[in-house]
Amino acid sequence: MSNPSVQSRIIQAVRGAERHDVDDCVAVEEPLEIRIAREGEGGSGRAVSITMRTPGHDRELAAGFLYGEGLIRDRGDVVAIAPCGQSGNVIRVELPRGSTLDLSRLERNFYTSSSCGVCGKASIEAVTETVPSCAVESDLRVDAALLPSLAGRARSAQQAFDQTGGLHAATLFDANGTLLASYEDVGRHNAMDKLVGSLFMAGGLPASRNLLLLSGRASFELLQKAMAAGIPVVVAMGAPSSLAVELAERAGITLAGFLRASSYNVYTHPARLR
Amino acid sequence: MSNPSVQSRIIQAVRGAERHDVDDCVAVEEPLEIRIAREGEGGSGRAVSITMRTPGHDRELAAGFLYGEGLIRDRGDVVAIAPCGQSGNVIRVELPRGSTLDLSRLERNFYTSSSCGVCGKASIEAVTETVPSCAVESDLRVDAALLPSLAGRARSAQQAFDQTGGLHAATLFDANGTLLASYEDVGRHNAMDKLVGSLFMAGGLPASRNLLLLSGRASFELLQKAMAAGIPVVVAMGAPSSLAVELAERAGITLAGFLRASSYNVYTHPARLR
Repeated sequence: MSNPSVQSRIIQAVRGAERHDVDDCVAVEEPLEIRIAREGEGGSGRAVSITMRTPGHDRELAAGFLYGEGLIRDRGDVVAIAPCGQSGNVIRVELPRGSTLDLSRLERNFYTSSSCGVCGKASIEAVTETVPSCAVESDLRVDAALLPSLAGRARSAQQAFDQTGGLHAATLFDANGTLLASYEDVGRHNAMDKLVGSLFMAGGLPASRNLLLLSGRASFELLQKAMAAGIPVVVAMGAPSSLAVELAERAGITLAGFLRASSYNVYTHPARLR
Repeated sequence: MSNPSVQSRIIQAVRGAERHDVDDCVAVEEPLEIRIAREGEGGSGRAVSITMRTPGHDRELAAGFLYGEGLIRDRGDVVAIAPCGQSGNVIRVELPRGSTLDLSRLERNFYTSSSCGVCGKASIEAVTETVPSCAVESDLRVDAALLPSLAGRARSAQQAFDQTGGLHAATLFDANGTLLASYEDVGRHNAMDKLVGSLFMAGGLPASRNLLLLSGRASFELLQKAMAAGIPVVVAMGAPSSLAVELAERAGITLAGFLRASSYNVYTHPARLR
């Protein structure tokens, strides 16, 4: 079975003064158009997003994206999610007949990219004003010594990264460090959407007893998605941005960064780490 | 002088079994709204983009974004670029009176994020069909042994990264490896837009005698921006995606990745490296 996340190519490897042609793998990046339609309405629906993503788990990606945007709330808000057309790059989300979803929010055709969650917000006010209303509620406490082990546990699930070095991952653990789910993508926001979408479809939201590991840096938008999913502990391999820290502070999320073999930094709500 | 790209915070550093409160710096991330207006028209213009960016060089970011989208072509297409309002997070680009810019392209209010260049494209076709028309023309040849030295040369210009570990950079060199310009941002596409915008405002486009160094991975959108800027050699510290490789192949761009102290991979057009 070929892996749709990986494409093999002949490349030229430069090693010191030598050059060799070698077989190599690169992470696949292709556009995905997410379309929304109401049950009983014909046609392919209305485009609400284009994102540059790694193919695979497109249903999860679509569900997670719409959940993160607040357009769907629970499993009953979705009748079906299925590919549309022949390209493999269009997915159609069918909402219930007579859905009360405010489609006027979509009328300006908002568009997103591989790490784009702000798309479609009408203004800077909309970006920041959505924040305070939605604090994470969780009395979870985790062993502070658990965190450094998470990276190794996640790595075992990251097959395509091992082959390409070109993918981000979002990985969910329980409070004992057991890996629950892991998704990869060229876009770190897509990896997060796939993870949240899988929880959405399995009825696993809010994920208020879980830890999230991000393979890269922690941005505002990733914290926004974690907040929407109710995740109380977010651990990033890389650095957080100022706005990610501010959002974590306000939302009651424990945010750690710069995860290494025996160290890390805690930016907000350290009391959750015993 | 404080650096607007960096914010200091008290954090908790976990080192093995010990925890200490320490002073730390994080990279600043804030939204920037780009607005367009015509000379002589009152008001603050029309919003065309919101991106999550690191403050600083907002004029270059706005110019580079609009150039990459094909909305402005040369210096005469812009009358002024200036902050608008008190927040420091809105910038207004003034186009000439009677500008023939097709503002209908903007009517759906397209929005972008920290690494978003596809935003505003009406469909997947638009994403991919814009590609073949714009090959880079350059007979530049560079010494293959020069590339591994570029990372060290760029690092010396990356002050905020050294403080935060949280920023991407786009750095331009001449064929001898002399650093010409370097811009940092939490979003790698913003760093690239700032670089291209600075070239745009200085009349330095197309940059057909130059090399571009990207601090992270090479995506389709970054290659699209490099192509628009006419840059013939793109070197990434990280992995390229499949679509980045395809676009570089079609556009005549030499694309290298996984740059290390004495090695790298060449994905396309190796003949430009002597």
